[in-house]
Amino acid sequence: MTEEWFSESLDGNFAHYYRVKKLLLKKRTPFQEIKVLDTYAFGKMLVLDGAVQTAVEDEYIYHEMIVHLPLITHPQPQNILIIGGGDGGALRRVLEHPVKKATLVELDEEVIKVAKEFFSEIHKGAFEDRRAIVRTENGVEFLKERKEEFDVIIVDSTDPVGEARVLFSPEFYSQAYRALKEEGILATQSGSPFFQKEVVKEAYFGLKKFFPIVKVALFPTPTYPGVLWSITLGSKKHHPLHISKAEIERRIKKRGIFGKNKYYTPEIHLSSLSLPQFLIEVLENGS
Amino acid sequence: MTEEWFSESLDGNFAHYYRVKKLLLKKRTPFQEIKVLDTYAFGKMLVLDGAVQTAVEDEYIYHEMIVHLPLITHPQPQNILIIGGGDGGALRRVLEHPVKKATLVELDEEVIKVAKEFFSEIHKGAFEDRRAIVRTENGVEFLKERKEEFDVIIVDSTDPVGEARVLFSPEFYSQAYRALKEEGILATQSGSPFFQKEVVKEAYFGLKKFFPIVKVALFPTPTYPGVLWSITLGSKKHHPLHISKAEIERRIKKRGIFGKNKYYTPEIHLSSLSLPQFLIEVLENGS
Repeated sequence: MTEEWFSESLDGNFAHYYRVKKLLLKKRTPFQEIKVLDTYAFGKMLVLDGAVQTAVEDEYIYHEMIVHLPLITHPQPQNILIIGGGDGGALRRVLEHPVKKATLVELDEEVIKVAKEFFSEIHKGAFEDRRAIVRTENGVEFLKERKEEFDVIIVDSTDPVGEARVLFSPEFYSQAYRALKEEGILATQSGSPFFQKEVVKEAYFGLKKFFPIVKVALFPTPTYPGVLWSITLGSKKHHPLHISKAEIERRIKKRGIFGKNKYYTPEIHLSSLSLPQFLIEVLENGS
Repeated sequence: MTEEWFSESLDGNFAHYYRVKKLLLKKRTPFQEIKVLDTYAFGKMLVLDGAVQTAVEDEYIYHEMIVHLPLITHPQPQNILIIGGGDGGALRRVLEHPVKKATLVELDEEVIKVAKEFFSEIHKGAFEDRRAIVRTENGVEFLKERKEEFDVIIVDSTDPVGEARVLFSPEFYSQAYRALKEEGILATQSGSPFFQKEVVKEAYFGLKKFFPIVKVALFPTPTYPGVLWSITLGSKKHHPLHISKAEIERRIKKRGIFGKNKYYTPEIHLSSLSLPQFLIEVLENGS
């Protein structure tokens, strides 16, 4: 890799390379190294400890999926918690729904500062919304005090290494379960089905210990290594497939998010939950 | 790129890099440069003019999709034509169905020789099947003489540059239409929906000129640049979505392909045809 290219790989044998216009920021926080790169193919890109978190040109896919899948599955989501998500892309999509309150708990306050300075295309001012509560603290600590409080919890974290490790643990899922109301839904990013099968399994079987309904959704994100990515949903009552295309359409319109999406549609909601045979077998083969 | 890595990019700004164990073959034919690489992440890989065509570890996704989507949509496919596909991966899947005849027309006989020598994991001896007819000639010339002969035509070609250019032209689609029986279906690879929107449009609107039913299917292939890839179907009579999950399941079992697939399932058949909003808009905005 020359100085003009940034690369990322999950296995050391297959890598994504991005041609870089300019390194806009590089700083070390108590938690991680933050870089902001301006790339030719995907615009500005947020990189934490060498891993691409989000990019201006393709962030819509991941953020629409991790927010609309659980929020549309829920009949009336009002109080939402986002753990991680310091770029504000998930917060912005949550606030497109008529929710009453959206709490964002990000470990690293520097990520939020960087997002405010460099990524207004992604958060679009969501941090300033009067329904948004932004806290910079440990998400696990935050959750410990909570009981039957949230309709939806979104875990928009880095991969399960370092500080984010605990966000994939049964202990955390147990606390999240308790913090959700009786119709509550949790959505967590759960890695690459090609290169991180153990991460998908960890989320899937971890959630299965507590939630009666657990489903994995797939979607492509060009700036994530291997592109195909997964979100795993744990739901107390509402099944993300037991909702008709017409009802999804109705909720999209009623909540005022019609015409705002570039990836998510009623058909994509349902079809993203169909898994390829190899992944069905991975999830049948136990934890 | 050092000698130990092979890279491919569609736009010069975003590239896939593969760590190479060994260059097994490099030769120039009258039509193209052929390379066979042994890679750490995806095993042996066939590269034509610098573009990855297939790799042992992920070939199943593309080949299952380009074969089973049209063949399962067709109630009784008996006579199949494959244009291109010299690696034999599509031919092998076609012959898993109880077809009477499968004709493979590959322009470059060297590709078939290389496939026979290096890619038995992909073709599994399909070239020697008594129902297979293997011809090395120009697919367009081959088609010119044909009328209402085939049930399914599969265009398993390189990208629309050089010799393959004509395989994306309205003239070719018109000839293919004529060469198909009245229940006939054509399936063609149609590029990356992220990086080659003009290729997807060219196939979609080209087929629309002749076929009453035209649908785009999406699926991930890690060794294709940008990973998310498309196949476009043109069908005279049978709609690939107007078939129930139960009927797909029934055909899979009846034809003896149950348990042979690692990607394709009845759910994937249907869900692969759901398009993201951005692509719906690309295809609504005309040719």
